[in-house]
Order: sequence, then structure tokens, then C-alpha cells
Amino acid sequence: MEMGKISVVGIGPGGLDEMTPRARQAIENAEVVAGYNTYIRLIEKILGGKKIIGRAMMQEIERCRLAIEETLSGKNVAVISSGDAGVYGMAGLVVEMILNLPEKNRPQFEIIAGVSAVNAASAILGAPLMNDFAVISLSDLMTPWEIIKKRVRAAAQGDFVIALYNPKSKRRVTQLDEVQKILLEYREKNTPVGIVTNAGREGESKIISTLENFTREEINMFSLVLIGNSQTFVKAGFMMTPRGYNV
Amino acid sequence: MEMGKISVVGIGPGGLDEMTPRARQAIENAEVVAGYNTYIRLIEKILGGKKIIGRAMMQEIERCRLAIEETLSGKNVAVISSGDAGVYGMAGLVVEMILNLPEKNRPQFEIIAGVSAVNAASAILGAPLMNDFAVISLSDLMTPWEIIKKRVRAAAQGDFVIALYNPKSKRRVTQLDEVQKILLEYREKNTPVGIVTNAGREGESKIISTLENFTREEINMFSLVLIGNSQTFVKAGFMMTPRGYNV
Repeated sequence: MEMGKISVVGIGPGGLDEMTPRARQAIENAEVVAGYNTYIRLIEKILGGKKIIGRAMMQEIERCRLAIEETLSGKNVAVISSGDAGVYGMAGLVVEMILNLPEKNRPQFEIIAGVSAVNAASAILGAPLMNDFAVISLSDLMTPWEIIKKRVRAAAQGDFVIALYNPKSKRRVTQLDEVQKILLEYREKNTPVGIVTNAGREGESKIISTLENFTREEINMFSLVLIGNSQTFVKAGFMMTPRGYNV
Repeated sequence: MEMGKISVVGIGPGGLDEMTPRARQAIENAEVVAGYNTYIRLIEKILGGKKIIGRAMMQEIERCRLAIEETLSGKNVAVISSGDAGVYGMAGLVVEMILNLPEKNRPQFEIIAGVSAVNAASAILGAPLMNDFAVISLSDLMTPWEIIKKRVRAAAQGDFVIALYNPKSKRRVTQLDEVQKILLEYREKNTPVGIVTNAGREGESKIISTLENFTREEINMFSLVLIGNSQTFVKAGFMMTPRGYNV
């Protein structure tokens, strides 16, 4: 029997109208869809009677293993991530696990880019990413906290706009204070900070705060935090980083 | 007469199948479309008889001014950028120019996120962005070269994966060598470097090279260069940055 194909699909921030036709097509062509429940629910309407893998908070590795197994019986599989699958999503694990297989056992695969959370959040806030930026996840599950702090410091020194993924979780509540402390060594207290929670989904909210005060705002695991650089300003409720330096 | 609305639209990397339905809808709803010719051509099929502004290599400010002017006569206008409009695209200028108008003269506006070039390039290369990354434009038209070099150094120190936009132009050919020299102070000669040219468009190509050799490859203004961090590796022609550090 011929093996099926795996498509690793970035579904975008949430709504079907922010998912590319290419992503939707890959999901529609799949007999099996693998993804975490929160994301499966966002695309429920187009799943019809497809087999779903990994609704529960399953280990990512186990979900990938099951997805690859399905291709062995000839099924096409879509592995979904919210935003872009290549940014803290499922692309890495799927590709790595496939390439670890002996060449003759490898299913065909493709990665389909999606609208990344950082771009969705930026569009909601105004235009905060118009100059160079750094993307940092504060999750220390797989990257040591010391490395993460080093990155925050480096990004501050480089005057990058900084996008923080996974800023907080139930378990992880003090890291954001440490990040704030580091950044205040390099940036003004009134540096604009934008917080977008549930970008592009039900319950979407945005807050524009400052480096001095943002840690007191409502931030959770569905929030993305954007910290301005030395040039970022707020006007009429929008956060803006000029493209250029006034030189 | 009621004013029209401006939508700043990220059309994605190029093909219509990588443009979100929301972006497409905004373009279809517009009577006037403003954008640089290269991008207008990518979406020619859905433009019908719409009025087009700025086909020629017009100054961006002039194009924005004309777009805003159209809304005064009640027209809906879509201002397009390739990739995501919020990343080195038109979002910043449009929002800034609108907010500079007296409040009663401001047209309504929205920013519609698109699949960013860095995500499109990443999907083509494998999964190089699975850990923290920095996005830097090497264009020194509006940011002084000294600041750009400082950022390259900071990103190197932070062990970020680095995405270089505008790596080269006809006028600007030596900067990439300077960047390479800085990075070689911090990273191994054999650090993987991915180059994607015309991602998602006709003539798409990918090259996987190394930090020591990549400047000799074909790189132009339509290329995006992705430089791996200390953990990035190449396997079976794919570039991969592990999500986690082996800790």
C-alpha cells in the first residue's frame, strides 16, 4: 500500500477567514487531523467526519507518532498548529521524527505556513513591528531560564521590538517580573507595551500599557506581549514603531 | 459624503492560495487598490476593473497620500504589501499618516495580517524558526548601518536564529560580508544558513549553505536569509532548529 502524506498546517490566529486556502485545502484533503483540542475546536466546522487524534492534552511526541502511524496505512494526515506551525508549533517535531525514520519508511510531508500570532497581534495593536524585532518564548520547559534571560538582555541591548510568547502560565508567574526588571535597565519606564489576548478569536482583547506597569495587567497563556523599542510611541490608542530612525 | 475605509492588507508570500479569505475580501470590497507593481501583478486576477494607484516605483509617502485622498471621495481603498503589511510593509506609514490628520478627517482603517515572508521561507527550508529568533532588515535607507550592525551583534550574542530581510540590492552589496564577519565571531563556520528566493512565487528557489560560505551564493533583493543558532542542524536537505535545548 502507498503511504499517505503529512501536512503540517498553520491554521492562523483562529478564525477560518484568517486561514489560507492552501491550509484549508490540506485539512480538507486529510482523512485524519491531529491537534490539540483548543485548536481543533477553532476549525471544527470544516472537519466533518474526519478522524481526530490528540484532542486531549496528549504529549506532543505521542501525537506526532500516531500521526505518522496513520500514514503507514495510506491515510493523509494534517497536523495542525495555531498561528504558524514553524513558530513554537508542530513543524519541528514532525519533520524531525520523519527524518529519523529509515528513508524507505518516511512519509511525504509538507509544511504550510500560516499567519503567525505575532503578526495577528501586531495588526490589532497598530504597527509595532515596523522595525527589527525579536521573538522570545518565556516557556522554560525546553529552554533553560538562564538562556531566555540572556536573550531578553541581548534583545534589549539591540533595541529590538520584543514579542513575548507564552508570557505566563498557571505554574509560571514570576518570569515576567524578571523580564521587566532586565528591560528597565535599558528602556524608559514609559516604553509602550501592547498585550493582545486571544488574537483573532472569541474574547479577543487588547491593552496598551507601559514597561513600568504592564505586569499588573491581565496576562495569561493566550496573551502575546509586544514591548516597544526606543522609538515606539502610542497615538490615539494605536502602538507604532516608525520604520525609520530620524537621521 | 461619507468617507471610505482603508484596509492595509498583507497578501502573503505571493500565490492567491496563500492569501487569507479576509485579505481577499478586503481587496474585492475596495474600489481602489494601492501597491507597488511587483505585488499588484501577483494579485492581478482578482483586481478586475479596479483603479490602481502606485504601479510605478512611486515614493511610498506619495502612494499613501493618494490612497487616503481616495477615501475622501467615498471610495474604499486596499493598500497592499507582500507578506505581512506590519513587517517592513505599508501598515506603519498608513496608520501614521491617518493619525496625523485632524480627527474629523480620519478615514476608518483596519490592518489585515498576512503570512509573513519569514514564515513562508521557514516552511520551505524545514523548521529553522522553532526556537527564539530575531528579524533584521539590512536596508540602511532609514536605519543607520551602525544600528543594524549593533543588532546583528546583539542577536548573535543572544544565540537567536536570525532572519535577514533585504540582504542585498544592486546598490548594497558589501553589508552581507560585514554581517558574516560579525556572526563568525560568535558562531561556528558550519552553522547552517538557508536562503530562500521568491518564496511562494514563480522562480522560487532554496539553498542550504553555511555561515562560512553563504555570501558566495546567489542572493538578491527577493531573498530571505535565515542563519541558524548554535543548535540548528541540517538533515536530508532540511534545516532544523530544535524546539528545546538538550537539558
